[in-house]
Order: sequence, then C-alpha cells, then structure tokens
Amino acid sequence: MDKKWVYLFSDGNADMRNLLGGKGANLAEMTRIGLPVPQGFTVSTEACIEYLKENKLTYEMIGQINSHMSVLEDITKKKFGNKDNPLLVSVRSGARISMPGMMDTILNLGLNDETVVGLAEKTANERFAYDSYRRFIQMFGDVVQEIDKNKFENVLDEIKEREGFQIDTQLTTGHLQEVVGRYKEIVLAETGKPFPQDPNVQLLMAVEAVFRSWNNPRAFVYRDMNDIPHDIGTAVNVQSMVFGNMGDDSGTGVAFTRNPATGENKLFGEFLVNAQGEDVVAGIRTPREIDELRKIMPLVYKQFHDTAELLEKHYKDMQDMEFTVEKGQLYMLQTRNGKRTAPAALRIAVEMEEEGLITKEEAVMRIEPLSLDQLLHPTFDEVALKEAVVLASGLPASPGAATGKVYFTAEEAKAAAENGEEVILVRKETSPEDIEGMYAANGILTARGGMTSHAAVVARGMGKCCVAGCEDAKVDEDAKQFRVGTEYIYEGDYISLDGSAGKVYKGSIGTQEPKLSGHFGQLMEWADACRTMNVRTNADTPRDAAVAVGFGAEGIGLCRTEHMFFNEDRIPSVRRMILSKTKEQREKYLAELLPMQKEDFMGIYKAMKDLPVTVRLLDPPLHEFLPTEPEDIEALAKDMDMSMDEMMSTIHGLEEFNPMLGHRGCRLAVTFPEIAVMQTRAIMEAAIEVKKEDGYNIVPEIMIPLIGMKEELDYVENVVRETAEKIKAEKGSDIDYKVGTMMEIPRATLIADEIAERAEFFSFGTNDLTQMTYGFSRDDAGKFIGEYKEKGILPNDPFQSIDVGGVGKLVEMGVKLGRTTKPDLKIGVCGEHGGDPKSIHFFQRAGLNYVSCSPYRVPIARLAAAQAALEMKDK
Amino acid sequence: MDKKWVYLFSDGNADMRNLLGGKGANLAEMTRIGLPVPQGFTVSTEACIEYLKENKLTYEMIGQINSHMSVLEDITKKKFGNKDNPLLVSVRSGARISMPGMMDTILNLGLNDETVVGLAEKTANERFAYDSYRRFIQMFGDVVQEIDKNKFENVLDEIKEREGFQIDTQLTTGHLQEVVGRYKEIVLAETGKPFPQDPNVQLLMAVEAVFRSWNNPRAFVYRDMNDIPHDIGTAVNVQSMVFGNMGDDSGTGVAFTRNPATGENKLFGEFLVNAQGEDVVAGIRTPREIDELRKIMPLVYKQFHDTAELLEKHYKDMQDMEFTVEKGQLYMLQTRNGKRTAPAALRIAVEMEEEGLITKEEAVMRIEPLSLDQLLHPTFDEVALKEAVVLASGLPASPGAATGKVYFTAEEAKAAAENGEEVILVRKETSPEDIEGMYAANGILTARGGMTSHAAVVARGMGKCCVAGCEDAKVDEDAKQFRVGTEYIYEGDYISLDGSAGKVYKGSIGTQEPKLSGHFGQLMEWADACRTMNVRTNADTPRDAAVAVGFGAEGIGLCRTEHMFFNEDRIPSVRRMILSKTKEQREKYLAELLPMQKEDFMGIYKAMKDLPVTVRLLDPPLHEFLPTEPEDIEALAKDMDMSMDEMMSTIHGLEEFNPMLGHRGCRLAVTFPEIAVMQTRAIMEAAIEVKKEDGYNIVPEIMIPLIGMKEELDYVENVVRETAEKIKAEKGSDIDYKVGTMMEIPRATLIADEIAERAEFFSFGTNDLTQMTYGFSRDDAGKFIGEYKEKGILPNDPFQSIDVGGVGKLVEMGVKLGRTTKPDLKIGVCGEHGGDPKSIHFFQRAGLNYVSCSPYRVPIARLAAAQAALEMKDK
Repeated sequence: MDKKWVYLFSDGNADMRNLLGGKGANLAEMTRIGLPVPQGFTVSTEACIEYLKENKLTYEMIGQINSHMSVLEDITKKKFGNKDNPLLVSVRSGARISMPGMMDTILNLGLNDETVVGLAEKTANERFAYDSYRRFIQMFGDVVQEIDKNKFENVLDEIKEREGFQIDTQLTTGHLQEVVGRYKEIVLAETGKPFPQDPNVQLLMAVEAVFRSWNNPRAFVYRDMNDIPHDIGTAVNVQSMVFGNMGDDSGTGVAFTRNPATGENKLFGEFLVNAQGEDVVAGIRTPREIDELRKIMPLVYKQFHDTAELLEKHYKDMQDMEFTVEKGQLYMLQTRNGKRTAPAALRIAVEMEEEGLITKEEAVMRIEPLSLDQLLHPTFDEVALKEAVVLASGLPASPGAATGKVYFTAEEAKAAAENGEEVILVRKETSPEDIEGMYAANGILTARGGMTSHAAVVARGMGKCCVAGCEDAKVDEDAKQFRVGTEYIYEGDYISLDGSAGKVYKGSIGTQEPKLSGHFGQLMEWADACRTMNVRTNADTPRDAAVAVGFGAEGIGLCRTEHMFFNEDRIPSVRRMILSKTKEQREKYLAELLPMQKEDFMGIYKAMKDLPVTVRLLDPPLHEFLPTEPEDIEALAKDMDMSMDEMMSTIHGLEEFNPMLGHRGCRLAVTFPEIAVMQTRAIMEAAIEVKKEDGYNIVPEIMIPLIGMKEELDYVENVVRETAEKIKAEKGSDIDYKVGTMMEIPRATLIADEIAERAEFFSFGTNDLTQMTYGFSRDDAGKFIGEYKEKGILPNDPFQSIDVGGVGKLVEMGVKLGRTTKPDLKIGVCGEHGGDPKSIHFFQRAGLNYVSCSPYRVPIARLAAAQAALEMKDK
Repeated sequence: MDKKWVYLFSDGNADMRNLLGGKGANLAEMTRIGLPVPQGFTVSTEACIEYLKENKLTYEMIGQINSHMSVLEDITKKKFGNKDNPLLVSVRSGARISMPGMMDTILNLGLNDETVVGLAEKTANERFAYDSYRRFIQMFGDVVQEIDKNKFENVLDEIKEREGFQIDTQLTTGHLQEVVGRYKEIVLAETGKPFPQDPNVQLLMAVEAVFRSWNNPRAFVYRDMNDIPHDIGTAVNVQSMVFGNMGDDSGTGVAFTRNPATGENKLFGEFLVNAQGEDVVAGIRTPREIDELRKIMPLVYKQFHDTAELLEKHYKDMQDMEFTVEKGQLYMLQTRNGKRTAPAALRIAVEMEEEGLITKEEAVMRIEPLSLDQLLHPTFDEVALKEAVVLASGLPASPGAATGKVYFTAEEAKAAAENGEEVILVRKETSPEDIEGMYAANGILTARGGMTSHAAVVARGMGKCCVAGCEDAKVDEDAKQFRVGTEYIYEGDYISLDGSAGKVYKGSIGTQEPKLSGHFGQLMEWADACRTMNVRTNADTPRDAAVAVGFGAEGIGLCRTEHMFFNEDRIPSVRRMILSKTKEQREKYLAELLPMQKEDFMGIYKAMKDLPVTVRLLDPPLHEFLPTEPEDIEALAKDMDMSMDEMMSTIHGLEEFNPMLGHRGCRLAVTFPEIAVMQTRAIMEAAIEVKKEDGYNIVPEIMIPLIGMKEELDYVENVVRETAEKIKAEKGSDIDYKVGTMMEIPRATLIADEIAERAEFFSFGTNDLTQMTYGFSRDDAGKFIGEYKEKGILPNDPFQSIDVGGVGKLVEMGVKLGRTTKPDLKIGVCGEHGGDPKSIHFFQRAGLNYVSCSPYRVPIARLAAAQAALEMKDK
C-alpha cells in the first residue's frame, strides 16, 4: 500500500501529535468526540520531512491532497473552484510543538475571479466577498509568493488618502474591486505571472510554502533556542472556512476554561460580534467579555460553555480555545493546553486534583519548575510601577525588585545600611572586596560585566536583585555620580531596580514581598512526597541558611569558607596570614581567624538545627585575597613591616598565568596544612559547642576541594582526621563527622574508585568540571562566546544546563566507579546545575542522592527533583 | 605443610628471582649448573614481607634458618660456632631488582672470642683471624647495631698514630687483638650489651637488619624514583665464607664477559692476588688486568674463562661476575647481567645475534631506548674536557655539548651567528620573542626557569643544548655581562655548556658530532621490522624536518605554524593582523604573511619528499605575539597609527585570566576564519607547487586544534574544505588532502564518536590533555609541585610519562569511540609523550597508528615502539 501522507480530521486523534502536529491532532480529537469543527485534513509532518529531502511535493502527496479535497467537498457539500457554491479553505502550519517564526495563516483560499462572484451571490454580500478576495491575495502574495507586503498596504493607503477615508471599513465594494485589480497587477509585476486562478494550484503552492518555512531563519533560531530538533518537520492543516462576519448572529472569539492569570475556575475570554479573527487582532473594535455572550446568544453560550467543560475534562487541563459563530452556528477552530502564570498554574493544578480530575502526581508534573522563580522574589507594586520612569536598561542578572538610595562604594553602602537606609550599590563592576557592601544593599547595579560577572553570580547566590552590564550608565565612583544621557544621579538619590527585567527606574517604587500561597505550599508537599533525591542549599551565612530552610532545604551542600574571609574585620588577618614567611607566623594569624570562623559555623549550625552541613575547605587562589588598590597595598606593607618593593614583588609572586589551574583547592592544604588544621578546628569546636548549648546533633561534613589524585586526598584527609580526633579528645566529645571530596577535576571522576576508598561522600562541582572538560574558562569565554552562539556552535550554555553528552559522561563514570568501591556512597552536586531543572533530571538518572543550590532555587529544585523521580518511575 | 621461608642454593634456579631476589636466584642457578659456588641459603622476599607485617622474625622463620644452617654445616663439613672447625658466613641483601641504599654486606659472621682462635689455628694465620674478627665487629656494629662507624675508625687511627704507622697492614696481631678488645667496649657502651658471642644470635640479628633496611629512607626514595613497588621486599643470602687472602695461591676479582664500555667480545676485569673484595675497594693496591691471571694461575684462569663463557651462553647476556680463589680453588660469588654503555649495548646485542646466541627480537629488547640519547647529541672532546674549568651548574635542560661566544640578546646572537660566529645565548629567561636567537645559537644558558621552562621546552624541541635555571649566574642583560661569584663573563667571551650534565665551563672546548655506528643502524633496522606503529616527528622548519628524516622519521605528526609567526620578518605583519579592526584590514596583513607561510611549507614538503605532513592551524592566544617591551609597544603604536593609550588598552583587552582556557586553538578560526583561510591556502598552494616542481606526491593533513565540540569542527572544517576546493579549482589540481583534529580537550575524547563523523584523523595532544585532566597548568604548578613531590603526592611526573590510570582512560575512550564511527580511523599522538618509551608502550596497547616526537627522540621512539609491539605479541 502507498504511504499515507494526508489524514482527514476524522482519521486522527490527540495521540497523533507527532504525525499531525499539535493543531491537527487537536482538530482531529475534537472531531472524534463529536464537537462542531469545520472539517478538513492534515498533510502530515512526515510529508514535510519528505518534502525537505526531495525539495518538492511528490506526485503521491499531490494525489492524496487532491483526493482528500474531493472528500472534503462531499462533507461540506461545496465544490472547490465552483462558481456557484465555492468551497473555501484556510491553510495553517502546525508543528508538534507550538513554534513562532513559521508561516502565517492563509484564509479564504479557493477564491478567484469567478468564485468571488459566486460567494457574493451566495452570501448576498458583495462587499464581504471582495474584501475576502483582496485579503486572500494579500496574504497569499505575502507569505506564499514572498512579495513585500508594504506594496499591498501602499495601494490601500493610496485609495484611502484619495478618498479621504480613515479606516478600511469605509471602503466600498467598488473600492475593493479596484484593490483586487491592482493587487493582481502587483503579483504579475513581482512574479512575472498572473495571480493563480486555479484553486488546486493555490492550495499546492500554499502547502509547499508552509513546508518551506520550516527552515526559515527565524524558525531555525527559535528551535535552537528552545532545544527543538530540526528534523521533526511541521504539518499543514487545510480546513473549510467559516465566517464570523456574516451579521449579528455571527461572531468570533478566544477563551480559556479557567483564568490564565489567577487560575480561577471560571470561563475567561472575549469575543466580537460580526467579525473575523483578524479584526480582533487589528484592534479597531473593543472585544466584549465572554460572559456577555450569555445575554446576546444564550444558546450559543450554553453550547460553548458545555464544550469548554467537556474539553477540559477530556484533556484534563486548562484549554485555550478559538471559536467562530456563523449565523448562529458554533464552530470550534482550535483547542490547546493554555499558557498561564505561575500562580494560576499552581491553583489550577491543586484545584484540578481536588476536583478529582488529575492525580497528585499529575498535578506535580503540571508545573514548570522555573516558573516558580516569579513567586520567590520581591516585585514592584503594580500601581506604582505604572507611574515609574525607566532610566536605563541592563542585563537581568539576578531577579527581584529593589529600591533605595544610591551609594558608590561598598563601605558607604554598608554604613548607610547600618544607619537604617535602603541602599542600592552602584559600581562600574564589583570585586570580592565589595561583598559586604553587596550584602548590605537591597540591590546592585553595575555598568560592566555579563550574566556571569562577579556581581551577577554573587547576587544570584545571595538572592539579591541585580542589574548588570548597564552600559548606558556612565559611573564615576570618585565623583559619586552616574550619568544616563544628560541625566545625573548623585549619591543619596533614589533609584529602583527590576532584576528580572534588567530595568533601572528613577526614584523609589514600593515593593511587595513574595507570598507563598496555600496552593504553592500544597503542591510542594505533594512534590516532596514524590521526590527521591534530597535538596540541599549552598549557603555561607546564618541568614542564607535560614532563608533556605524556609524554602525547604534539607541541609547545606556547600558552605564556602572563603566568603567569610572577605569580611572587613577578617581580611587583615587573612592577608597577614598569606604574606607570612614562616609556618609559625602563619599559625599566629590563623589563630586570630579561628574564633571568627568558629562563630560563623556556630551561627550556621544553629540555623540548620539537626540538618547536615557540608563545609568546603578554603578553595580560591590566595592572591584573590590581596588588595589591588595602591593605597591598600601601601597600608598593608606598613602593617607587615615590609618595603613597598618587597610587598609588590610578593604580590607578583603570587600571581599566576592560569589561576584556575593554579595553586588553589586542596593544593593549598598540601602546602599550608596549618590552614586546614585551623578550619577543621573551627568546624569541630563549633559543632561540639552547639551540641552542648542547643542539643542539636551536628554531624559536620568536611569537604576537600579540587582533588585530582588519590594521594592528595590521603594527605589532606590525614591532616583533617588527625586534627578532628585531637579536638574530640581535648573536648571529651564523641561527636561524629565525615570527610569527603569535591568531584570537579576531570581526573577525579576517572579514578573515582580509588578516591572512594578514602572519601565518605562525593559532591560534584560541575562548574569547574564543565570548565575543565570543555577547556575554557568562563572569565575568558566572553571573547568568543558571542560568535559561538551566533554561528550555532554553542546552542546550549553548558553552564546553565549540564552537558549530558560530555561532562555528564564524567559524572556517570564518577558515580559508577565510586559506588564500585562503596555501594552506598552518598553523592551530590553543588555546582549551579544543582538548581537547574533539566540538569536535575540528569542527576536523578545518574543516581545522585542530593542536589544543592542557592537558597532561592530550593523550591524549584524540589519540584524538578519530584518530576525527575516521577519520570524515572514511568520508565 | 608449613610455608617455606628459606631455600638452599641447591633448591632454587634463575626463574625464582621474585622469591629469592636477583643475587639469590643467580647463586642457585650457578649451583644448579654445577659451577663452584660457596654454598648457602636464601631467606625469601616473602619472609621479608611477612617480617614487615609482623615487625619481627616469626618462630617458623627462625626454625627454618636454624635447620638450613645445619644442612649447610653438613655440606661444608664445618660447624657454626665450633671452636675447632668454625663455619663462617657472609650475609647480604638481594632484592628482585638491584637497588642501592639497602644494607651493606656483613662478612665473617660466626666469629667470636672462641672461634677466632680456631680460625687462627686452622689457617695457621693468627693475624688473618684477628683482622677478620675486627672487620666483622666493625661491619656488624655499623650496619646491624647502627653504631656510628667513625667510633671504630677512630680506634684504628689512634693506634696507628701512636705507633707511627701509615697503613692498616702495618698493624700486628697484637695490635689487632687490642682493636678487637676496644671495639667490643664500644659495642657495650653504645648498646648497653656485650657484643653477641652466639653465632646464631649474630645471624638472626643480621637477617633482621637486612629486612629492616628495606624501609630505610634512602631505599624508599630510590624505589620512588625508579618506579619500584614498595611491597616486594628483599631476600637475604647467607653464604659460607671463602677467603682470597690466604696466600699467593689465593685472590679475588671482578670481571665482565665483554667490555662494558665498548662491547668488545673479550673478557674484561681485574683481580688482586692474596686479597679480599674489601681490599679492591680500599684502593691500597692496584688491581691487575684479568688477562694477567693467565700467567699467574693458568689453570684457574682457564677454569674462570670457561665459566664466564658458560655463564654468558647460559644467561644469553653479558655477565658481571665476582670470584674468589682460595688456595688455588676458584669460587664464583655472584653473576648478573652487566651494566654497559649505550654503544656497548648496541654492539653486544648485534654481535650476540650474529653469534646465534639471541634472536633479532631479543636483540631489540636488550636496548634501553632512553640510553640512545647519549648517541644523538654532540659531546665534548674527552681530552679537552679534562682541562676544562667548571664555572657554574644548572639544570640539564636539553642534552648535548656546545661552545661559543656569549651574547645576551636574541638579536645580537642572531647577528653574530650570521657573521659566522659560534654563539651561546645567555638570558635571565627566554620568551617567544627569543626564538630566532635560540635558533641561531649553539646553546642556551638561562638563570631562571625549570625543566619545563620556555627555554628548556623549546631547546629540547630544537635538539639544542641548554642549561636552564643556573641560579649562580647573575645575568645583567643591559650591561651585557654575567657574574658567577667574583668571576665576570662579558659579551664575546667563550663559554661551553654540557646540557646533559647541566654544567657551564669557562672558555672553548672542542665538541664531537654524534656517530651513528654500524651496530646502531643494524639494530634500528631490526627494530623497524618489529614495529607496528609509525614514528613521525614534530618539526616546524625544513632543517628540523631533514634532521628527523635522517633519524628515520616517517612523516611529520605536528608542524606548528605559530613558530613561523615569530620570525623577525613576519612578526610585524602578524602584529598588524592581530590589531586589525576590520576583516578587510586583517585580510590585508594576512595576504602579506601568505607568501612567507607558503615558502615555509614548500621547504618542509621538500625535506619530507613523499612522507605525510600534518600541519596544525594557528593555536596560541593572540596576545602571545604582541610585544612586551615599552619601546616595542611604542613603535608598534606608531606603525599602526594608534595612540599609546589605545594601543595599551588593546593589548590589555587581549589579556586573559586563564589564557590556557581562553581564546586560542580552533576558537581563533571560528572568530577569525580568514586566518584559517590564509593558512589553508599556504598549505595547499605549497603542496601543489612542490608536486609540480619535484613530483612529490604531497597529501597535506590539515589539523584543527583544541576541538571540544563537534560543531566547532563542523564550522572550521567547512572553512578549510571550501578554501582547499577553491584552490584546487583555481590551480586545476586534483591533489588530495585530509582534515583532522587534535584530541586535547577532555570533552573531545568523550564525544570522539561524533568528532569522527567529520575528522579524517585524530592526533592526541597529551600535554594539554594532561593539564586539563589534572586541572593544573605547568606554568603555575611550580608553586606547589615541589611540595607535592616531597610529600609523595606526585611520585611520577604525568608530563613525562602518560598517566595511564587517568589521562590514559580518556585516550582509550577517544580511540574506542572514534573507531566506533570509523573503524580505520588513523590516530596518533603528538604531545611530548610521543617520545617517551613508557608512554609509547601505552600507546601501542591503546591501538594508536603512530607517535610523533621531536627529531632527536625519533630513534628512541622507533626502538620503544618495536619493544612495545614485541611485548604485545607475547601476550
């Protein structure tokens, strides 16, 4: 039997989405369950793939399109191209996944110089017929024949100007006939051929144009951006026309079965009497609320209302529908699952479960985890926002809304915040020395740097609103001002930042704290019941730890001890420690740091109560802690009793060619074991004291970073264990603790079986692992990454979602080898991927025990982990 | 049955080396084949391992030692500890692999206050007996009881001074009895116990001391340095004593079956009449050549000569033997395969094959590949060297000998060389800008930098002699002088460098070019017949290419195009190209470079004739080409019509945080495809012209570096192929070419199946692959690598021999995945590992088609590849 390329709506159903596209499958499904759908047929996605291979419609396809048109003639009792009773159709693309950039709709196909007369007679509406004809030529000329559409618009404008008309509806039949004539001339001039009069030719040209549009650049880029495969093709839907513009008993509209903004379970939408879909878009007339249809066409309303209810029950999801009423007769033109806001999605999912429509698991699967982000940050008061003046735009580096007085240095920002002021820190760019000021500020604005700049990364970690790379803002930190165009903002002036949109506003705008509504809580409870992976957080302070616990974190997966080192009261001791020339000197300054580190850990333990806390030993290269400003260097030299020359040469000596691949991580602990000793002491003593004071059963997990060789772990682990045991003996404590390692060096994953002989847990540091596996540093990638994206070489950012095919293989290898040695080895991830839903699915498949992410990502990770677990269960 | 810990010599044979150690196995073997060996027994290496575990000799071992001593008494017809007929033994360590640092020999064990009297009576030589006794106490006290040996020496010195004696032999029996008495006092004072009189106690203490010495620090370090496992233990040999100092019919000697310096097939060695082994070492009497033994003891000589011949035939290798003659009776004390120089090794292997003693394959396996290095570089004239004055020492960074006048800048060195002067370039440290000067010089001396510094790496690549990191030399480049202590060397003064030993000499010393003798050529011919991997070379110039072909290279595996860019006549165009603001500007400067690159390639093709040439596209970050000296920067700014500010900010803009992980390799070709276009054009046009001119069938292999994603390869490969096809069309040529890729980014090895869809060959760049897999850069590792080695964390340098367990896994994965897609994919390696014998064995197992190394490593690689192939065949 020949291959089937074309399917009547009555041949298909909703499960045939891959073959018929979303639109076609739903039209078939509505037909199947007896809803009033203008009949038609779908040319399949397989035909598209074949077309793209052959570069033409095959004779087989053409034959099947023609024979299905004959069947459609029988169904509609009209004739395609027949002057007296013409069948008109619409032609629309419809891929498996809804996708902008594809060919637009063509309406009224089948009209020509003869059938337009028949249509006029049959509808007794000559103006309507010629208006339909000129719209058809315009759409066909534009999208099929690729004629500049301004050429058509110019004709209309010219006639309107000549006649002194304001709007299209003032044009008479005569004018429209003139338009049709001149449109046909344009087509002849542009294509060298008359406008095709044969409806069969029109149809085949339109189908081909849809297929061709699959590879237009806009569609191509969209697919790349959204991870849609390039080889699945689109279907074409050919549907008999119905007209909503045939009088006051006709009309057209769109509606949702529930409110897409709030989720309220009430039909929501709008309609226009005596109009076509185009008119709604044109915005000439104001549509009416769907409720009013009840009064105007009670029977139609009842029928539509019942249909909506039926569709929602049938699809078990909120539906987004298009309909047309032709002379009192309702036709459904489309239905699909409706897009909705995050609050609406939560409410709909929870209420549908309560209504018995879906299961708890289905409810959990309904929510896009990343959409929760909207609910987790402060937002601007919507009324106030309408009055606000946009000053400049930058990158939406860290979401949320913030308002406050501008300060230009970390110190001043901190001082102002301590005085109770609301502060926005404005810097050209930030550096580790600004941490405290960033922490004190409500929001951060930088003139330079991208989405992965210091400001952006740190702000996201803190859950703090940030607009980065705002190049319009000319920041002069010395003069304490910044300029946008001719506008100057001075220290103390109010500005407001929208970190989700990257907008900077003048003045103060009121903000609203996030409300985690009942539906949200309910859904997260269900999600937690489905989940098999734990969700921890990356937190370096008691405040972050508390926020994360509030969001449901089940422990700390990564506590970076270096952030604590940057505090103003510690950095002097840190610097002195780094510049020490002997072990004794270094130990003296470490002793100064000990009580402070211990206090930090006590605060964190108390915030986490009985939950586990993983502390990573010092990781960054030491030169990151040294001052960069000449006056700071001078002060330090004086303090350390060194000459400026000696100080400069010491600082230069610590500089590295490739600091990422330099003296950092466990390499610091090997060369300066006394640092690891101090940190272990702080970790253990804090745990022992908190246990004594509050009774919490702390089991510190001490994590050694940047392990690449088993011998490194052996060495540092010995230092840590010897110290820990010594402290236990000193304090007479029997507290438990674990020693584990980061998996972030490619080699570590390759010898994970050896590493697991000593490590009690693994935590994948997928940021560094990705950098080293790809062989590029995020700091430097700026020089070429733009071009890489432009040229389609790096369609997906491997730092956002884990690169399953490359880096993922190392993760899988590390898990497999590690568990060969220790079948129960606890394995987690603490890179930024730990908060990325797509990556979380991978981590579930890879068999990880937990993911760890920044506090504001915790609810997202909980939901994504639940979905990943459900997906695994289904397999 | 109880475990056997002790073996009589007559219980063992040569195959039991692992159990009995090398010395024990050979004593057993000599016993087995009927040679005159003083009998004895071996305590096994297993006993050592057990001892180290239990920390004592077990009762079982003690029992077996005692019972074997009884058997030995029966064999020798003497009694251990018996006053009238005392059995004396020597105790010696003997591990599987000969190893310095272990416990020294103990002779005459079994002597005590009673047996010494018996020995005196039995030998009728009282002086001999007491001399033996005092020697025994001294050795035992030193090595078993760990008493400072100076304490014993002081007694001897004191008595000699008192008596006015010059040498030990002047001491009478009475003096020696006094010495024995005072030695016993020392032992009592130092250990708190009298010197042990019970011979059984002496024996067990001595055995235990040997076992204990396995873990002494010197032995430990030696094993680390030589890759000897720490857990194999040593054996102990207990052998009945024979004495060569019993008159003129006695003697002792050592001999080789062939000359270990030249390989000549003639007994070679020396002996002393009426002497013990110790006396040879003491150097008091001058030994006589072995030949003279023929006259003095013709029968003994004949017996020894026949024994030597028998042993060599038996072991099928040149033997290093120790023997003693006691009262006209020959005893063999040891035989082992003799150490030899590289020329001797070659001659012996080739001649033994010709004598039918070994096969060609065995001959090939006999030569240590790295030893060939001695034969491949110039050496100093030995006579002249004896007169030479050492000025300073540095690191032996690149082997060979060189002499010449000192110059302190690359320009001056080049100019002097062009004037026909012999030049030594002396720099604080070198940078890429010095390349031409290094090239022009006979040798390079630097004050800073290690074995992997720029100077060292480049010099090794060029096969040029280099002493690096010579910290004693205080170099003042501006003053054109350097100082060592108080000695000044000025520009134009002669110095000489020994790059193999790291020595710097004053003045000029004559050098000899390497002679590749007939035996060398013969052996390499045999090796090539065994080999399955090809050996290519890394060469960037016609000269290097020619040298490598002379050494047997079968193609170029890596031609780095960037080295050409540093040439004085090109760097201006290169810099202008880099600083270009538009594609057009860049293309203009690239057009200037094109004829020069083309000329380079033509020279290389001509040197290689029909052999394959792999050319790598531009790899290093662009800022490496920019000037660093202020005056050069200023000149460039003027030249480019830029302000100094603009120039500085452009240069800063090109700087990177982690240049190794930055904008380099194929990333350059993606952002500036015009560079790849120019290089492809140069490669193709050169090949077409050389084919036309000389008829060589050049098939250029164009290699794209630093691929991490298939999309990168797709993009750059398209650029290369489009250009190449265009040039073929322009020139009407049907020349063939291949496009392949480096495997140096970890990710590339993980997706090698995808990469192989496009790549026609792979070449592993194991230098970068090792850096990224370990996550450390060689440039920065200096900060911690010393401590890593000291602490035993990095016992083997992964840049010298490939890290089989980590990096090797990625290589294996890359090969396996690549061949999944293309079963015949040609795969090679062009990192420094390509010239390392140990790594070559791994590459053979991994299934590579070729290795590529620097020209001077080619013969080594050929031999190593042959041995690797033979080893695989055996399995």
